[in-house]
Amino acid sequence: MTAQSLQQVPSGQDIIDAQNRIAPYIHKTPVFTSKAFDAMSNKSCLLKGEHLQKTGAFKARGAMNAVLIHKDSAQVSGFITHSSGNHGAALAWAAGQIGAPAYVVMPSNAPQAKIDAVKEYGGIISFCEPTLKDREHTAAELQNATGALFIHPYDNYDIIAGQATATLELLQEHPDLDWLFIPVGGGGLLAGASLANYYFGKAKVIGCEPSNADDAYQSFNSKTWVPVTKPNTIADGLRTSLGVRNFPIILNHVSDIILLSEEELENAWHICLSRLKQFIEPSAAAGIAAALKHHSTGKAGIILCGGNMNTLQFALR
Amino acid sequence: MTAQSLQQVPSGQDIIDAQNRIAPYIHKTPVFTSKAFDAMSNKSCLLKGEHLQKTGAFKARGAMNAVLIHKDSAQVSGFITHSSGNHGAALAWAAGQIGAPAYVVMPSNAPQAKIDAVKEYGGIISFCEPTLKDREHTAAELQNATGALFIHPYDNYDIIAGQATATLELLQEHPDLDWLFIPVGGGGLLAGASLANYYFGKAKVIGCEPSNADDAYQSFNSKTWVPVTKPNTIADGLRTSLGVRNFPIILNHVSDIILLSEEELENAWHICLSRLKQFIEPSAAAGIAAALKHHSTGKAGIILCGGNMNTLQFALR
Repeated sequence: MTAQSLQQVPSGQDIIDAQNRIAPYIHKTPVFTSKAFDAMSNKSCLLKGEHLQKTGAFKARGAMNAVLIHKDSAQVSGFITHSSGNHGAALAWAAGQIGAPAYVVMPSNAPQAKIDAVKEYGGIISFCEPTLKDREHTAAELQNATGALFIHPYDNYDIIAGQATATLELLQEHPDLDWLFIPVGGGGLLAGASLANYYFGKAKVIGCEPSNADDAYQSFNSKTWVPVTKPNTIADGLRTSLGVRNFPIILNHVSDIILLSEEELENAWHICLSRLKQFIEPSAAAGIAAALKHHSTGKAGIILCGGNMNTLQFALR
Repeated sequence: MTAQSLQQVPSGQDIIDAQNRIAPYIHKTPVFTSKAFDAMSNKSCLLKGEHLQKTGAFKARGAMNAVLIHKDSAQVSGFITHSSGNHGAALAWAAGQIGAPAYVVMPSNAPQAKIDAVKEYGGIISFCEPTLKDREHTAAELQNATGALFIHPYDNYDIIAGQATATLELLQEHPDLDWLFIPVGGGGLLAGASLANYYFGKAKVIGCEPSNADDAYQSFNSKTWVPVTKPNTIADGLRTSLGVRNFPIILNHVSDIILLSEEELENAWHICLSRLKQFIEPSAAAGIAAALKHHSTGKAGIILCGGNMNTLQFALR
């Protein structure tokens, strides 16, 4: 039986189906705890290690789900996407799992580690200017030339259902979470997390966004979609605007969006390295920073969304 | 029944006893694997995460073992040691577990993160010049003044038996290891690992040492104890000379000692961050560097010995 691409907001069953579909390919990631971090945040925190996921980010979940759904129709012509990095690597990896080609349009300022990862997984890269418009234009041209199926990095219900499985997994182990702190860029992870929690949890879901890329915060509070302008944040995975499919889900199922300064993000990144000994990318520090900043108690889930960044800037000698 | 301090090389039963004694206090640490790292090293590698151990290093094992053995006699007067850092923090932590004071003599050039850790666990610090002679002198004076029991960081059979439990744990899960790559500084971890493997494994044990602090290599190959002179390595935990109790154990039960350049150590540290996403201290890179350098195949155990280092030198902005 061929799976159908989702045409509407994923149901609880859609998320369960995605989990079963991708289970043979992805890691069930470990959950980290730290007494020192609990004391700092005044909460009992469970940090889901998606930086240890295949391709080093949760993006493997959504990409694998989308690729498997379209396996029959797209195995030969392949898949295409535009991505600042983690989704591109994830799509290249996922396509490789079924022997399909993957074309990835990347902004010219993408981190080298993310470019290398796409190459390593066999992705075919085309560079573009770092604007959404140029990304989409380059991707459309390439799509016409190759006949490949476009898989949007976040504005896609199959992707959202796939990303939701990270939170589903955490809730299956810890159904009694009071809070979920979830980074938000395009909103794939946050929309998925808020849906998984709506169907299977009881937490309040807090989106975690850099002040310097605060479109989700502005959109959420004005209830009107506002695009990001000149994002200038170390959290390179969170520089994108909310997807139009993601925004209403977030409006319906997210409790609040908390803004983090660059200093708070960097401080949280250092705490993760020094206390949890986990090497994450700056975007993954957003959940940690928010848990530290948010005045609350109880049991909190935090998604460490990825671990892909250049390390060569960190010299020991 | 009061436990007795070991007066001779630990037996297999002594190591089992240590494991049972410290089990309620320490973490059973996770073992990491990476297909990418296996491909690079041409081996199937199991990396034991002692950087996730209590106090951020395997040293918690030995210190807890020694402290529990002397609980009845030293609970009031306390414990004393000299340490470049991780043993000091571990002893402070272990003493704290039974409500005893801990005095720690530290070299003035110890990393700030290690100084902070000793303080955090309630240790009482005295600084000394960064020479073995001054360390020992300062410790002896303090010992006279306080009546505290001196626990040597590595040249002590109770400590060796405690450190051996890290390898014992790994061998209990993976008894068929062909190789064990173990960092060597004073030789507590390496002596313990080689004993655990002698009693419970079948691996060849390879000591992993910086070229710039190659006393164990020289001692091992000349079969004569040679002290370290002017160690100049980023692996700050491996700058010490072999202990006199450790050396004969290593001579008897270690197959070889491999030397690593500073470049190889730094490269291995970067690989651990970028591939395994584990944040380790430079000393812990020695096992990784050796596994990459050693021409061998099969199943290899590597001990990631610690994760305590300053992170503030790594700026994101």
